[in-house]
Amino acid sequence: MEESFVPFGGIKNDIKRRLKCYKQDWSSGLSAGFRILAPTTYIFFASAIPVISFGEQLERDTDGVLTAVQTLASTALCGIIHSIIGGQPLLILGVAEPTVIMYRFMYDFAKNRPDLGSQLFLAWSGWVCVWTAILLFLLAILGACSIINRFTRLAGELFGLLIAMLFMQQAIKGLVDEFHIPERENPKLVEFQPSWRFANGMFAIVLSFGLLFTALRSRKARSWRYACGSLRGFVADYGVPLMVLVWTAVSYIPAGTIPKGIPRRLFSPNPWSPGAYENWTVVKDMLKVPVLYIIGAFVPATMIAVLYYFDHSVASQLAQQKEFNLRKPPSFHYDLLLLGFLVPVPFFLCFSICTSVFMLTFMYRWQTILCGLIGIPPANGVIPQSPMHTKSLATLKHQLLRNGLLTTARQFIHKNASLGQVYERMQEAYQQMQTPLVYQEPSARGLKELKESAIQMASNMENINAPVDESVFDIEKEIDDLLPVEVKEQRLSNLLQAIMVGGCVAAMPLIKKIPTSVLWGYFAFMAIESLPGNQFWERMLLLFTAPSRRYKVLAEYHATFVETVPFKTIAMFTIFQTIYLFVCFGITWVPVAGVLFPLMIMLLVPLRQYVLPKFFKGAHLQDLDAAEYEESPDVPFNLITEGELVRTASFADDGEILDGMITRSRGEIRHVCSPKVTSSTGTTPSKEFKSIQSPRFSEKVYSPRISQLRGELSPGNAGRGPFSPRANEKPSNLGKG
Amino acid sequence: MEESFVPFGGIKNDIKRRLKCYKQDWSSGLSAGFRILAPTTYIFFASAIPVISFGEQLERDTDGVLTAVQTLASTALCGIIHSIIGGQPLLILGVAEPTVIMYRFMYDFAKNRPDLGSQLFLAWSGWVCVWTAILLFLLAILGACSIINRFTRLAGELFGLLIAMLFMQQAIKGLVDEFHIPERENPKLVEFQPSWRFANGMFAIVLSFGLLFTALRSRKARSWRYACGSLRGFVADYGVPLMVLVWTAVSYIPAGTIPKGIPRRLFSPNPWSPGAYENWTVVKDMLKVPVLYIIGAFVPATMIAVLYYFDHSVASQLAQQKEFNLRKPPSFHYDLLLLGFLVPVPFFLCFSICTSVFMLTFMYRWQTILCGLIGIPPANGVIPQSPMHTKSLATLKHQLLRNGLLTTARQFIHKNASLGQVYERMQEAYQQMQTPLVYQEPSARGLKELKESAIQMASNMENINAPVDESVFDIEKEIDDLLPVEVKEQRLSNLLQAIMVGGCVAAMPLIKKIPTSVLWGYFAFMAIESLPGNQFWERMLLLFTAPSRRYKVLAEYHATFVETVPFKTIAMFTIFQTIYLFVCFGITWVPVAGVLFPLMIMLLVPLRQYVLPKFFKGAHLQDLDAAEYEESPDVPFNLITEGELVRTASFADDGEILDGMITRSRGEIRHVCSPKVTSSTGTTPSKEFKSIQSPRFSEKVYSPRISQLRGELSPGNAGRGPFSPRANEKPSNLGKG
Repeated sequence: MEESFVPFGGIKNDIKRRLKCYKQDWSSGLSAGFRILAPTTYIFFASAIPVISFGEQLERDTDGVLTAVQTLASTALCGIIHSIIGGQPLLILGVAEPTVIMYRFMYDFAKNRPDLGSQLFLAWSGWVCVWTAILLFLLAILGACSIINRFTRLAGELFGLLIAMLFMQQAIKGLVDEFHIPERENPKLVEFQPSWRFANGMFAIVLSFGLLFTALRSRKARSWRYACGSLRGFVADYGVPLMVLVWTAVSYIPAGTIPKGIPRRLFSPNPWSPGAYENWTVVKDMLKVPVLYIIGAFVPATMIAVLYYFDHSVASQLAQQKEFNLRKPPSFHYDLLLLGFLVPVPFFLCFSICTSVFMLTFMYRWQTILCGLIGIPPANGVIPQSPMHTKSLATLKHQLLRNGLLTTARQFIHKNASLGQVYERMQEAYQQMQTPLVYQEPSARGLKELKESAIQMASNMENINAPVDESVFDIEKEIDDLLPVEVKEQRLSNLLQAIMVGGCVAAMPLIKKIPTSVLWGYFAFMAIESLPGNQFWERMLLLFTAPSRRYKVLAEYHATFVETVPFKTIAMFTIFQTIYLFVCFGITWVPVAGVLFPLMIMLLVPLRQYVLPKFFKGAHLQDLDAAEYEESPDVPFNLITEGELVRTASFADDGEILDGMITRSRGEIRHVCSPKVTSSTGTTPSKEFKSIQSPRFSEKVYSPRISQLRGELSPGNAGRGPFSPRANEKPSNLGKG
Repeated sequence: MEESFVPFGGIKNDIKRRLKCYKQDWSSGLSAGFRILAPTTYIFFASAIPVISFGEQLERDTDGVLTAVQTLASTALCGIIHSIIGGQPLLILGVAEPTVIMYRFMYDFAKNRPDLGSQLFLAWSGWVCVWTAILLFLLAILGACSIINRFTRLAGELFGLLIAMLFMQQAIKGLVDEFHIPERENPKLVEFQPSWRFANGMFAIVLSFGLLFTALRSRKARSWRYACGSLRGFVADYGVPLMVLVWTAVSYIPAGTIPKGIPRRLFSPNPWSPGAYENWTVVKDMLKVPVLYIIGAFVPATMIAVLYYFDHSVASQLAQQKEFNLRKPPSFHYDLLLLGFLVPVPFFLCFSICTSVFMLTFMYRWQTILCGLIGIPPANGVIPQSPMHTKSLATLKHQLLRNGLLTTARQFIHKNASLGQVYERMQEAYQQMQTPLVYQEPSARGLKELKESAIQMASNMENINAPVDESVFDIEKEIDDLLPVEVKEQRLSNLLQAIMVGGCVAAMPLIKKIPTSVLWGYFAFMAIESLPGNQFWERMLLLFTAPSRRYKVLAEYHATFVETVPFKTIAMFTIFQTIYLFVCFGITWVPVAGVLFPLMIMLLVPLRQYVLPKFFKGAHLQDLDAAEYEESPDVPFNLITEGELVRTASFADDGEILDGMITRSRGEIRHVCSPKVTSSTGTTPSKEFKSIQSPRFSEKVYSPRISQLRGELSPGNAGRGPFSPRANEKPSNLGKG
């Protein structure tokens, strides 16, 4: 993305490019059939559960002014609008923890002003939203997203880790609270006797850790050794929601012997109970807010605008990392503009709906619900749900491609086709299943690789023209090895999950059956799920890694910096970042100044560009935290050339690698092909190696090496060079020499 | 071991061979220094905790006649005697679950006879012990242990799994009981109110699962990536006892807010409280038992004799598996004879001590304690503690060898010695640290291997005479790769753990602080720890493994049968064995016939030899369950030739492989060198491969292949054959090509 600050330039460009693939966005989603439900439910739970919990949190923080009904409604409404008219449909919108924190600060400020108070809080926050919207419009129009390539890992990953910390904090706090009497409850109830409180707390520990462990395990189901493939796939796809159901069911097992309030369950008013919106006729209140406060609303609005600009862009960036090999364009400018509209969406939406509906249905109580929509907290792009979304769609795409190719291959193997023919058919099938490349000029991506690998494989076989014997040729594994990482880019999963979130408002009585302790377990799960792939986190772990085992970090995370940057520099950089993280985390605890925490994170961008180079060597900094403005300007989003580099990060065994692959970023993947297995500790930086930048580099080095390794590991081939002729041999088979 | 049934022949032979190394048994243990405490405490906990719990179980089953004090005393007494004058000091003695079951049956029988009753139960059980002892003497003298090589995996592993099931049953039963009011307790106590009972149950789940997970994790500490090596080693060595302490401490965290009885803790009378032995003046009672019952005691005695003969031999066999490369001889006959003495040890010991002490200290109450020793249930060789003991000593030996060699190597590297010199010194050091080979004729075992590997390694280096650069040559990893599996064979750890178990009798007030729920977690831990390496268990898992992933079983467990035996046959065999297991398990539940369960297991030996060959092909049976009587008779215990085969199952990274290596048995290790990595599913049995039986076979195939793999994995060497000359190359280093 070029840095162009021509007003409306970025927006126009985004709209033009996204319009080209708009139809395909829908047709592609529909073509996936019921399988689209796997990523949909996965993201629905990841989206809805925190939102419900944030709603509970807001309810406590705002003395019941805002509840889970409002946060759910906001998430659903913004999600539906974004998935239909938004630019990047991979981005998931939701009410996020920072928003909740900002609202708490705002409420604390408002309730202590005699001329504002909690009655006018919602009206005042409406003004904050209006100001925020105006600021976001300005940012979008002036092309502020052009500087998004200045957002290096430093800021993005620190923000990601901050979110993870906030999630974990909530999990721990929630669990501890299970041992105490909740506020606003009658402490004389049976379930708040010391014995039952202790029992409740212990039960909560069992439920939350139970959920946490089983959810973490189930995500790895694809690499389990047991059970058949479809069951494993089902568990991996739906395991987390399933576990929420299972542990909710478990929470009912001792129901007969314990009081009704144990374990504690979600508390939220049903949307149709009068209490849910009785103090909410606030449309008319907006003009009651004193002018000074209307102007003063600009201050929190700036913070929220900065936060949203940053959060939205980073979430969008993380959902579109290069490793995902996306084929459709990003849309930073336009999405920010849309966010500007979405922030005061209750205002605009309700103003238009309400003014018309208000006139017609003055006497009906339903008007209050519609009006009630005003004042719902705004939603923005969320971490970690957005990258989770892309990842789950990559798994989906892999499954679809795999099944298609398998069917084709099996079909021709049964017809006694030769290996050459089978690969030819597979290539055709692969080509048919390809998403047309709408971003940049089209090319036969992936296909070329498939073909070349096929030829190579075939040359290892006895005779390319002999019929294929499936007992010797493991077609499933072959396909898994050949398929590149691709993502099912479409709008359907986002729309469906947003609608399902909306459905939660109606399904409140069911949702209220989930124990709060399961929620805390889920929070911990989300925090942990967001860690792998975060290089900052990996560097923190590296500090605690025994020196003799550091090479393992290189092999596992492909973290080249372990080789190229002295450990002392890595440690310094990581410690600086960790201190900064804890300062940011600490600020969220400060009563009023806490409102500044988004600024702290934004501050990292200039800090990285102007201050850090004075303390660290440029080359080291580049390796630890690649900044695109320090590279040649055109490479970054050129998916065609860069994409080639990561092609070989393909699926090893039914998506196992994908389980581990999340947010590795540019430059790292180059070393997939050189895991450090030799015993010599690599003190020599492999500069020569890195300098190779040919687009087909990875294939040159990596692909032959796989087959070579395979050949070497079967004892029959010991003592023969990897490139020695094999044309007149049987396929390398264990025990045949 | 030859099948010789010459009376006393086996015993004489055993004593002769063990006497040769008796002095070394002690000096070797003392030379290990404080490090001997790691295996000692590990086995102490593994020995004491079940014994305490079995004592509790016995107390319930025998209405308080026998308690944990008796089981501890028996384990300690027998352990001390065995460790000093026993044949095989690797064998751990203890009161085992089958003994508890047999005693329950006996008590149930006795208490319902009017002329026996619970008063004469101990006296009668004394007679059972006398008969058992006589039977064991006969078995030992007549050389019954000669047929021990007819005990194939079939019976041994089934027995091991039965023990694991009994442990797991106890863990589950114990955990469920935490929710109920225990018998013999006042149900009106505060802690037995429904709310506190529920709280206690939930707390118990937290504590037991907490212990289970952390204990399982801590055993794998050596392969952790974090923390320094010494901390990792400490956690791996002492993690399990440490976790018992940690979770006991955790159980005290809510102490202020909950009643004293929560969580429930171990219950056992202190040995000095009068109630502990008030009904125990039973020496004189032995002659009060009616003659009919004295004779009738022969029936349970037969069962116990069969059980002990089998259990003792299998435990001994498992502790001396070939994979451990033991250098000292086994001692089956003599140990069985000694067990015969140990069974009625209270009788003999107390008879002699008591008659003398009784006269002298008639008026002192201490006499009752000594007399109280009579009637303690006998101890025998236990599973899984015995193989756990050998395994922990193998880890110790590895640590010692490693440290010694490292010191030597570093010393000479600092003197700028060449690689050739360093290896020469290391060989000398290794030779000095060797246990003299007393069993069979001595040979330079291990050493030869080290030397050959050294030469091979050296030839890969640039110049064998140039000074070694430690940054290139990772000496620690080299040593780990070179060192063979060896065991610190000595008597000290066994003696110390037995004394510590004895100390538990005095430390009862401290031991009673352990919550029972931690105990249940420990039981589950023991059951799970005993599973890996049990091929029967691995075959059961194989039935649930997806067909496409069966090759992983081969790679991980080196289970050759996966390749050589059709899956249908494996399934049939495993299902037969599983049904048999459940029948045995079921029988332990049957009130009186349950006494027959040892017979059921012994029955497997003739069943395997005469019946199974009619249903399964000989070759398949041999692969699934190698019987030595079907092979050449001289190979089995010839450690020199067979030992060579397993030499290369060396330590990969600081004992990581050892973590996984437990009870693989003969014939399996051959395939270490052929993990199935190729994509072709191996339907072709590798007969040619298996037929190679040269003693240095493993080295021929395996060792060069390691270095070959290493060479191949570093990109610089791509395209060169493994045996191509490398003399003028730099050591293969990442990124250098």
